[in-house]
Amino acid sequence: MEITQHPAFATFAFCAAFLVLKMLVVGHISGIWRIRKLAYLNPEDAKAFSQIEETRLEEDPDIARTLRAHRNDLESTLPFLAIGLVYLAVDPSPGLAKGLIITFTVFRTLFSVFYLAAIQPWRSLSFIVGELCVIVMLGQIFWWAVAG
Amino acid sequence: MEITQHPAFATFAFCAAFLVLKMLVVGHISGIWRIRKLAYLNPEDAKAFSQIEETRLEEDPDIARTLRAHRNDLESTLPFLAIGLVYLAVDPSPGLAKGLIITFTVFRTLFSVFYLAAIQPWRSLSFIVGELCVIVMLGQIFWWAVAG
Amino acid sequence: MEITQHPAFATFAFCAAFLVLKMLVVGHISGIWRIRKLAYLNPEDAKAFSQIEETRLEEDPDIARTLRAHRNDLESTLPFLAIGLVYLAVDPSPGLAKGLIITFTVFRTLFSVFYLAAIQPWRSLSFIVGELCVIVMLGQIFWWAVAG
Repeated sequence: MEITQHPAFATFAFCAAFLVLKMLVVGHISGIWRIRKLAYLNPEDAKAFSQIEETRLEEDPDIARTLRAHRNDLESTLPFLAIGLVYLAVDPSPGLAKGLIITFTVFRTLFSVFYLAAIQPWRSLSFIVGELCVIVMLGQIFWWAVAG
Repeated sequence: MEITQHPAFATFAFCAAFLVLKMLVVGHISGIWRIRKLAYLNPEDAKAFSQIEETRLEEDPDIARTLRAHRNDLESTLPFLAIGLVYLAVDPSPGLAKGLIITFTVFRTLFSVFYLAAIQPWRSLSFIVGELCVIVMLGQIFWWAVAG
Repeated sequence: MEITQHPAFATFAFCAAFLVLKMLVVGHISGIWRIRKLAYLNPEDAKAFSQIEETRLEEDPDIARTLRAHRNDLESTLPFLAIGLVYLAVDPSPGLAKGLIITFTVFRTLFSVFYLAAIQPWRSLSFIVGELCVIVMLGQIFWWAVAG
């Protein structure tokens, strides 16, 4: 069916935009830490932002944590966004589709908060909930492609 | 043309879902290694999963390898997924489109296996085959956008 | 509306293909550096490409720079590609849409050049211009999803 005519398309559009915004925010946190802590990897950044010559070889632990949280977004949020339009094209039931998209978005956001605040096991549980949403979506795509 | 009406859409949907599933698997391997080897980067993970206080600054070589294989998926699989729907929209011949999509998927999967098993030059050859598929797809999009 | 019928679709298709090609080029630069500098992380690569046994634990500074430029593409270019089709679906005015897509593409390309050449503050300014384009796109999607 026509992707943009699916009843869950507006939900997906809103959640996709929200998730991209959330990734931008996580990305900026490491930039702010770098400037506050004078922890630059590129010598030209040290000069431009803080008029210093010093760079660091070892990452600061807080910045390394933020980079890991951001990398996890690349590993989990981007595949969700990439598969989202394909998912709507296989015409899932509107209620299930909206439920999976909203659940993924909520728990991915919680994941970022829990990662930056170092809270376990809630971070891992949030990760698993998000992943289960994606697995159900993948299962519906497989089923449609093979049986449909 | 309408993306979802293209004769290769079902092939793309299946392969896209398969590639996302493959990325999830590669991502989980590093998680399993971490727990088995007690090689945690975050102190809260060490405590939650293994009731230890110890974290590592240097990555374990097996985990570093898995992370590199996963990162390569971010660099290669995600651009393929991102460009896939645009590609179908420029109305490529169904046979060529299906061939490129399936070839990419097969060789990307082989790439992951060869990376995790440390097998060269087959890993690099698999990488090149996948990349050539993407380059042909990009060429068709450029041609359509300029000449079409 | 139908995504592929939007007047800015051809612009998006061309720019998306160009950005993926640019990412491939940045990715290859680190590979070429590795072979030239004999700076391998995987022992099987050292053997296959240069018939040596030696690998490096610490990254070479030039390669680390290229990897950071490439990672920034994953963080910025991939979300743009992921949100692009959703953006066209909310039916933005053709002139604004084309302007944002072309501006993002030009400044993302400049960003890569400035990063590899270590030129500041132009690299950060290019980053900010690209990000502002994405934020306007996200704002239009939010507006459409809520008010539309």
